[in-house]
Formats: sequence, structure tokens, C-alpha cells
Amino acid sequence: MRGTVLHGKGDVRFEEVAAPRIMKPTDVVIQISATCVCGSDLWFYRGINSVAQATPMGHEYCGIVEEVGREVTSIKAGQFVIGSFFASDNTCPHCKAGYQTSCQHREGVTGAQAPKLRVPLADGTLVATRDVPPDDLVPSLLSTSDVFGTGWFAAEAAHVKPGKTVVVVGDGAVGLLGILSAKQKGAERIIAMSSQPARQKLAREFGATDIVVERGDDGVARVKDLTKGIGADSVLECVGTQESMHQAIGSARPGGAVGFVGFPHGMQLDGQQLFFNHVRLHGGPAPVRRFLPELIDLVWQRKLDPGRVFDLVLPLDQVAEGYRAMDERRAIKTLLRP
Amino acid sequence: MRGTVLHGKGDVRFEEVAAPRIMKPTDVVIQISATCVCGSDLWFYRGINSVAQATPMGHEYCGIVEEVGREVTSIKAGQFVIGSFFASDNTCPHCKAGYQTSCQHREGVTGAQAPKLRVPLADGTLVATRDVPPDDLVPSLLSTSDVFGTGWFAAEAAHVKPGKTVVVVGDGAVGLLGILSAKQKGAERIIAMSSQPARQKLAREFGATDIVVERGDDGVARVKDLTKGIGADSVLECVGTQESMHQAIGSARPGGAVGFVGFPHGMQLDGQQLFFNHVRLHGGPAPVRRFLPELIDLVWQRKLDPGRVFDLVLPLDQVAEGYRAMDERRAIKTLLRP
Repeated sequence: MRGTVLHGKGDVRFEEVAAPRIMKPTDVVIQISATCVCGSDLWFYRGINSVAQATPMGHEYCGIVEEVGREVTSIKAGQFVIGSFFASDNTCPHCKAGYQTSCQHREGVTGAQAPKLRVPLADGTLVATRDVPPDDLVPSLLSTSDVFGTGWFAAEAAHVKPGKTVVVVGDGAVGLLGILSAKQKGAERIIAMSSQPARQKLAREFGATDIVVERGDDGVARVKDLTKGIGADSVLECVGTQESMHQAIGSARPGGAVGFVGFPHGMQLDGQQLFFNHVRLHGGPAPVRRFLPELIDLVWQRKLDPGRVFDLVLPLDQVAEGYRAMDERRAIKTLLRP
Repeated sequence: MRGTVLHGKGDVRFEEVAAPRIMKPTDVVIQISATCVCGSDLWFYRGINSVAQATPMGHEYCGIVEEVGREVTSIKAGQFVIGSFFASDNTCPHCKAGYQTSCQHREGVTGAQAPKLRVPLADGTLVATRDVPPDDLVPSLLSTSDVFGTGWFAAEAAHVKPGKTVVVVGDGAVGLLGILSAKQKGAERIIAMSSQPARQKLAREFGATDIVVERGDDGVARVKDLTKGIGADSVLECVGTQESMHQAIGSARPGGAVGFVGFPHGMQLDGQQLFFNHVRLHGGPAPVRRFLPELIDLVWQRKLDPGRVFDLVLPLDQVAEGYRAMDERRAIKTLLRP
């Protein structure tokens, strides 16, 4: 079969790879219904994170179970399933506490930008929908696999509650779905930090009540203006740079919370800033598995349409263009169909 | 009158100073019943923080109200009162949210190691006891002014709850009262990190169930051993150094919380460590005012005896010996009586 392989900076190819097969009795193999390109894929594509060797890409997925390992008990062939980028047993103490991305037996999932995918620890990792979904639901179901689950975790970690004032730093797909999550959790005011008209538009449609175009300390000053000098109750940090985190911490009120889900790149936090800002900080790789049943249900009932972040849909063999469009910020997020 | 003045590294003197007087109509002047030396005073005494000029010392206090500014409405002459090291109006949005040490009008209180003290924003800052307390309650009441309130906030920020496993990093007076706070909040297991026998003894009497003498990564490994490899639900960081914070973060389970109250000195937190440890972080200067009514009540009813951290009692004019004894770790904490 052919799949997506990153060979180096800017060099992503759709080429012949080994077809996945059951390697452990707890694995399944699925036929991909849809996959997509993640903002974190771009760190490698751009050469900011290096790849030592040709690397199969893709960790967001949903599809139909094709082959089932002999120790798998809850997942059946023919089911439509969704899973997270980290496989987890969902039984260890960390999983039971809701931190499946810190599972004591976690395994990274990769190679999803292909027609088929091996998923380890299938019983713990995958959630099956009640039926095979209608095709128009597939993009939103796919989004629960990572990008929506990550935006949701940002809102959760930032303690978003009904009536609260929320700031979202970052207007990528995660930030936009952070806005949708905050709205769903009842936030009264949602301030989106974004300077791009198309993203501002979607931000407003997802629930943003205010847009701040300024960045850094100017952005913080604008948030303070908008909140009578108090700052926000909750801040979602969806970028992962030093500047974005500084901006997030500065935007929170004393006792406010920052949920950070942007993968940190060279980020150092100053102990005294954290101390005197009285901020609450929580984040990390989103434990998507915790949220999957709830998010799938919201999509299935058509209460939310997170799949709208996919503004470019391509056949899988045009994956290279999907990366380019996101790299050049022509697309927010690329969905790929085998 | 004579009061305590720090002139430079290791040079603390009890010498003639101007007597405090009402400067703003919201001030009161109190007669000090007892005061003490704070761990944070030692940062200056040791020259780690420099003093630009001769500085009146002391910010932990309780005593009898002597003189009352004309705009003060709730505090009366003759009352026994306790306040925090930051004066606060207790009406601004940050105060109402429980973060009085981030009050929009906060003022530092200093000069408490003296027979009399001016307290700004008296209505917001001070809490009066129902009567003038019996003398044996004074040390414990004094402790609520800072050191007990700070240990309590560490436990609060670390989400200590009934049945939980708690680690306390730091065996100074704040750490020891963090243990007492965790016990009072129902923690089932309290692991104290301490290598000094006298402090270990008090730690156990306050509620510690386990003692870890190792530090740094060895200390973290020992905590993991004691918790079946899982880590602690709550960690109280009561030191403020890079090493102690690293140890605190490493000791928490994924989703666990670190409450940090040690004033940070040169502390830089690595974004990726925070991200992958899935830790919750919250701290800062303890909003003692929020806790004063509850803590005073616990002391008044003789349910707790936090004043036991004072293992050296001196007359105020021997304050220099009080600093020396703490600096040389001969005393945990020095209480001073005018």
C-alpha cells in the first residue's frame, strides 16, 4: 500500500510502505475513513523538530475495524472507531485518573495518513460509535481524535465554567476548537486573539465575542482593557511558544487558570512571574480518550460541528499539497480521504 | 521607641526608630503582643536579597489596637487583631475572588518586629478575635498571620482532599505547618521530606506518616517507591529553589497538583517538563486574609496548635540572636515578645 512518509524538511511523500498487520494480540488494524494533518506535524515538516530517518506520518484517525488481535475483547470487526494519538490501556492508575496520555503502557500511534493503520491496545484506546456514521459526520468525528479533544482539554484545564470570561491564545484549529469548547461549557465572554480575517470569522461563528489582534504585552493590555483591568478567569494557550505562554499568563486574573496544550518549544517559565501572577497552570498532551465518549455524542447528536475547521479536503495521495497549504497558512487544517 | 532594623548582610539591630502613627485615615496603630522572624527575612539577612538602605523588619504580627484612623469603621481600639503581610482593601475584585495578596490597592506591611506597628487599610486587613485571648494562645494566633496561612494555602493550592497522598517539600516552619494543614484537610498519607531529626519529630507529631531524607532525583525516586510508582496526588513546595520545585513536580502523579509558596529564587520552569508531567501548578504569596477567620477559629477552639513551630522565644530586644539562631538552623522559628 502507499502511505505518507516524511523524509526531511519540506519533503513529504506518498509512497510505497509496508501494510500494517497485527503485531501484538491486543492490536487491531483499521481501514481509515478520514485522517488529517496536525499542527504538530508541521514542527517536523518545517525542520524545527528534526527527523532522524524517513518517518510514517499521521496520528489523527477514524475508520472501520478490519482485523482484530486475539486478545481484543470489546472492539469488533466492522465497527467504526475513533482513537487518540497515544494508545493507552485505560486500566492503569493514570488512565483511571483520566490521564490516558500518561498511561503507564502508552504507545505512540503513527502512520495514520494512509489507507490502513495498526492501533495498539485497542480495547483501551478505541471508542466505537453506535453505527457506521453517515458520511457528512465523518469530519467532525475525526476531529474528536485529537484537535477537538485538545481544544476541549485546554478549556477543561483552564476551568472554563458557565458565565466566565475566557481568552484563547492561538487561532489555529486547536485554538478555534478551544473557542467552541469554551462556548459549549457556558463561557459568557470569549476573547479570541487572532489577526487573520478568515480565522476571526470562524472564531466568531464558534462563539468568540471579542477579537484582539494585538500580540505580546500589547495583547495583554488589550485584554485588561476589555476586562476592566481584572484579566480573564480562564486562558487557553494553544500555541506553545515562550511569547504565547507569557501572553497567556499575563492575561489571567489572580486565581485565574491557564490551560496549555500547545507543544512547548524552548519554553522557560519564570518562577517569579508565576508566583506573583497567582495563576493556575495545567496542561500537557490532551487525554483525549477521557473525552471521546462525550465529544462523539455531541457530534452524533449534531449539537456541534467541530469539523468546520477542515477548510481543505484532499484525496490522500495529494497529502503533500495538504502540508504545503497549512505551512503557508492557506488552510487552517487539511482533511485527507483515502 | 526601639525597633528592628536590618543594615546589611548579617547586621540586624534593635535601635531607636520613629514611633508609628496614623498617616492615612484608613490606618490603625497596634501594640504588638507577639511577632516573629520569617524565613523570608533570612533571604535579606543572608545577603541573597540585598537591602539598599537600613530597613525596618517584621511582617508577622498580632496585638491590641491602640489608635484608629477616622475612616476605619469595623476595627475598634482595645480589640486584639491579626493581619497579613500585605494590607488589602478586601473589596476589590481580586480580594473578592480570594486573592487579597493581589489586591488592587495592596500595601506591604513592615516594621512589625517592634513594640508598635502601623497597619494600612485596617478594615480590609485585620481580623479581630472575639475577646482578648489568653496568653498561651498568642503564639498560635500569631502563626495565622503568615506562616500557618502560608502552609494552609500550599495545601489549598495543591488540592489536598480527604484520603489523598501528599508530599511536603521543605521542613521549615511553612513546610511543617503545610503538614498540619494537610492533616486537618483529611490527607491519608503525608510524606515529609526532611533530613533533620528535630524537624522530623515535629513533622510526625503534625501528621506526617512517612519521612524521606533523600533529595533531588533520589527523593523523587523514593516518593515513587512509596506510592507504587504512581506519585502523589498533592505536593506542597515550601522552599522556592530550582531544585525543590523540580523535586516537587517530579513527585506528583499525572493530574496531581503542586502548591508552591516558597518565594522563588532564580527559578526557571521547563515548559516540556510541566507539559509531560501533566502537573497542576498554583501558588504565590498566600492570600492569608482569606483564611484568617477559619484559622483563628481552629486555634481559638484549641483544635490545632500551630504555634509549636516556635521553638525559640526571646524578648524583642534580643532579636539579633533570634535571626542568628534561625540562620544557623538552631531554631525552626523565633517568636519575639516586646
